[in-house]
Amino acid sequence: MSEQRKLKFGALIHGVGGSISGWRHPDIQADASVSLEFYKEQAQKAEEGKFDLLFIADGLFINEKSIPHFLNRFEPLTILSALAAFTSRIGLVGTVSTSYSEPFTVARQFASLDHISQGRGGWNLVTTPLESTALNYNKTIEEHPDHAKRYRIASEYIQVTKGLWDSWEDDAFTRDKETGEFFDPSKMHQLKHKGEFFSVQGPLNIARSKQGRPVVFQAGSSEAGKNFAAKEADAIFTGQPTLEDAKIFYQDVKNRAIAFGRNPDEIVILPGIAPIIGATEEEAEHKYQELANLVSIDKALDYLGRYFDHHDFSQYELDAPFPDLGDIGKNSFRSTTDRIKQEAKEKQLTLRQVALKETTPRTSFIGTPEKVAHLIQQWFDEKGADGFIFSSSVPNALSDFVDYVIPILQKRGIYRTEYEAETLRGNLGLPFPENRYAK
Amino acid sequence: MSEQRKLKFGALIHGVGGSISGWRHPDIQADASVSLEFYKEQAQKAEEGKFDLLFIADGLFINEKSIPHFLNRFEPLTILSALAAFTSRIGLVGTVSTSYSEPFTVARQFASLDHISQGRGGWNLVTTPLESTALNYNKTIEEHPDHAKRYRIASEYIQVTKGLWDSWEDDAFTRDKETGEFFDPSKMHQLKHKGEFFSVQGPLNIARSKQGRPVVFQAGSSEAGKNFAAKEADAIFTGQPTLEDAKIFYQDVKNRAIAFGRNPDEIVILPGIAPIIGATEEEAEHKYQELANLVSIDKALDYLGRYFDHHDFSQYELDAPFPDLGDIGKNSFRSTTDRIKQEAKEKQLTLRQVALKETTPRTSFIGTPEKVAHLIQQWFDEKGADGFIFSSSVPNALSDFVDYVIPILQKRGIYRTEYEAETLRGNLGLPFPENRYAK
Ligand SMILES: Cc1cc2nc3c(=O)[nH]c(=O)nc-3n(C[C@H](O)[C@H](O)[C@H](O)COP(=O)(O)O)c2cc1C
Ligand SMILES: Cc1cc2nc3c(=O)[nH]c(=O)nc-3n(C[C@H](O)[C@H](O)[C@H](O)COP(=O)(O)O)c2cc1C
Repeated sequence: MSEQRKLKFGALIHGVGGSISGWRHPDIQADASVSLEFYKEQAQKAEEGKFDLLFIADGLFINEKSIPHFLNRFEPLTILSALAAFTSRIGLVGTVSTSYSEPFTVARQFASLDHISQGRGGWNLVTTPLESTALNYNKTIEEHPDHAKRYRIASEYIQVTKGLWDSWEDDAFTRDKETGEFFDPSKMHQLKHKGEFFSVQGPLNIARSKQGRPVVFQAGSSEAGKNFAAKEADAIFTGQPTLEDAKIFYQDVKNRAIAFGRNPDEIVILPGIAPIIGATEEEAEHKYQELANLVSIDKALDYLGRYFDHHDFSQYELDAPFPDLGDIGKNSFRSTTDRIKQEAKEKQLTLRQVALKETTPRTSFIGTPEKVAHLIQQWFDEKGADGFIFSSSVPNALSDFVDYVIPILQKRGIYRTEYEAETLRGNLGLPFPENRYAK
Repeated sequence: MSEQRKLKFGALIHGVGGSISGWRHPDIQADASVSLEFYKEQAQKAEEGKFDLLFIADGLFINEKSIPHFLNRFEPLTILSALAAFTSRIGLVGTVSTSYSEPFTVARQFASLDHISQGRGGWNLVTTPLESTALNYNKTIEEHPDHAKRYRIASEYIQVTKGLWDSWEDDAFTRDKETGEFFDPSKMHQLKHKGEFFSVQGPLNIARSKQGRPVVFQAGSSEAGKNFAAKEADAIFTGQPTLEDAKIFYQDVKNRAIAFGRNPDEIVILPGIAPIIGATEEEAEHKYQELANLVSIDKALDYLGRYFDHHDFSQYELDAPFPDLGDIGKNSFRSTTDRIKQEAKEKQLTLRQVALKETTPRTSFIGTPEKVAHLIQQWFDEKGADGFIFSSSVPNALSDFVDYVIPILQKRGIYRTEYEAETLRGNLGLPFPENRYAK
């Protein structure tokens, strides 16, 4: 098995995102988050680099303190459908929340993306950490569900969605022009789901796709989040600051998958990285500093506040120790807020230090192509990762990565030189899921 | 005004749709409703014919009696986003129901389509006639809202949507790299809507588009439907069996628009037509018969039943007078069911006659290109229509129309030879809507 193991890559496309003030850089397109041309170029560059997938993050609430690329950006399903037309092999993964949507509609939109792209669709299932989201949606939701309830909803939701995706067996549509039989009625199935949060009869009004059903991603890292992912997800997008953390997380999730009776190779773990490449160490370091210098401290405090459900950090002394926040953030981006609190305590950081650190995170993936390739291989070999979600920070980050780092990984034989399969599921090395009703 | 008046055309793309048994025709692609290649070809052909827009119909409930192209088809927003990439000037209009969705999500998806296509997006707002739809959605909806309530929901919904589309003034995003000001906070607006059905704070997380906001279509023809359209819609897609009916409808809607204080030229009325073209009258007639012959009577009864909320017509005598159905169908496709009942009574039709007539409607738009062009001009000149939504029935219907009928209309000077504008709104002759907050 481990001889055949190959690195996987995703590319997070987020326009001016990555760093909160990156858009101020003279060489960065400031309106990239709504530029089709930009998305298209990034998608095609990632496909040139044989990436497994494009990844579109998302959120459903903004205010005047939100970071620039959240304020004005494409909606995931629509932009991915457009990118399907501009690409032919790369997977297309979009974020949609189970707390603020309807399973029939979402199952259908992802199935449609999966058909349009001929088996390249994927769904990053999130439960929405931001409490204020309820303010934009309270026809159906009186208040933002708490953390535990969000995962209860998600668990039922994914059952319904997977059920709807099986509405039609793979050979249900016979389309016999002679007899006039368009489909075999014994191969159409009503789900008839009735649960705590949803009742959905089905069938879905779209067939299964070339890859059976869209690939399911998940990004939660709390206990509930990891259990959910280990049980239901095909892939995990995670934030891991160090290789040590990544190895613990990796083993933890794979073990949970085994406990749920799954083959641990069938859940792909992809930490996010934002490499900064330079011809020399100094050049890479210079690029990092250039980016960090664009951030003002007040914007950094706003950014930090968002993780803690828009908590106002301007009330604290900047150069005093990071404040004791008690439970603030627990019902929001919990795994991130827990980590920030813990690191601040352990390393005795001030508020200013925490804020600047979070806005322009300094990872080890900064340096020459050889150094970055080496680190990637180390994380991969030591089972901290099955691959990575690449996120751009400095100008030309993706093209530098594709042009200089990818060839090294290919030469080392740990990364593909050509797509192995036509579907996202196939490229990720995941098996075709049989229809539950197939005999 | 009437000298500048120019015909408008939309193309309804529905794969194997149009006629319920058209897919059985040897020259029709039976899996067209999920064929990207088919949609792309149709879209490009319509753009070659300088059509204003592509139109994607939709529905949210199917069962084993549903007509073939409803069973397995693309979802409108995703397929239109893909088609945006394959076209450059034609508008992209998709159907979404206000009874089974959330305004924040729908406002956003259409705004995103509108950005992706650079100002070519449109929304066909429907209230969903099929009662059974609630079976697929009853997290939020305990039962299908009745006709009056559906339009009350729709009225509030469109207010919310238009409000969200104005969240950002056109020049809100300043993106000043020097000062670090990404937007002017005085040009971002919260909607703070609180109504009977929705409370939505805003702002929307996407800017206004090149055409201000997506074009709004509506297709209801009941009293409530016509009032709603006359007040809120930019365009109407309607089914009108004869020129006389069309003229009455046209005048009625334009008068209602005036009563709401609107300029009647700013609501575009587009009846649906499904022309069948032949080199001779006989050839066209032959094509019609070929199509009609593919329909079996049991499929025709199923099809008829759907309008009446899946009423079972197999219980009645086929050659007896059309049965008295009382109120059945009133809460479903009301304008259609009213028309069917009335025609059956007036013309003393049997059930068999009604069923076959509805499944392969015989319109006057059958014949040579000259005859069809003449009829189109007549409907246009006599104010039965501002243009038409073209729907395919026989093989190559759209390409025959573009190749043979469009040139005649161009020669007569009533149809464009080149797009006048870059946006859908511009091509439809509709003014750019100012942002409500603009000073
Ligand atoms: C790498 C990563 C990416 C994420 N991307 C999104 C996103 O795009 N949209 C979103 O609403 N939440 C996103 N989240 C938040 C998670 O979905 C989740 O809600 C949050 O981590 C809290 O859940 P947890 O306590 O299980 O970790 C992301 C989280 C991580 C770690
Ligand atoms: C030409 C035409 C096209 C329509 N297209 C759709 C459609 O795609 N999806 C849908 O749910 N309803 C569609 N409808 C139904 C209308 O949206 C509306 O629900 C129905 O006509 C009942 O409302 P009314 O009583 O106001 O006419 C269409 C109606 C007409 C006349």
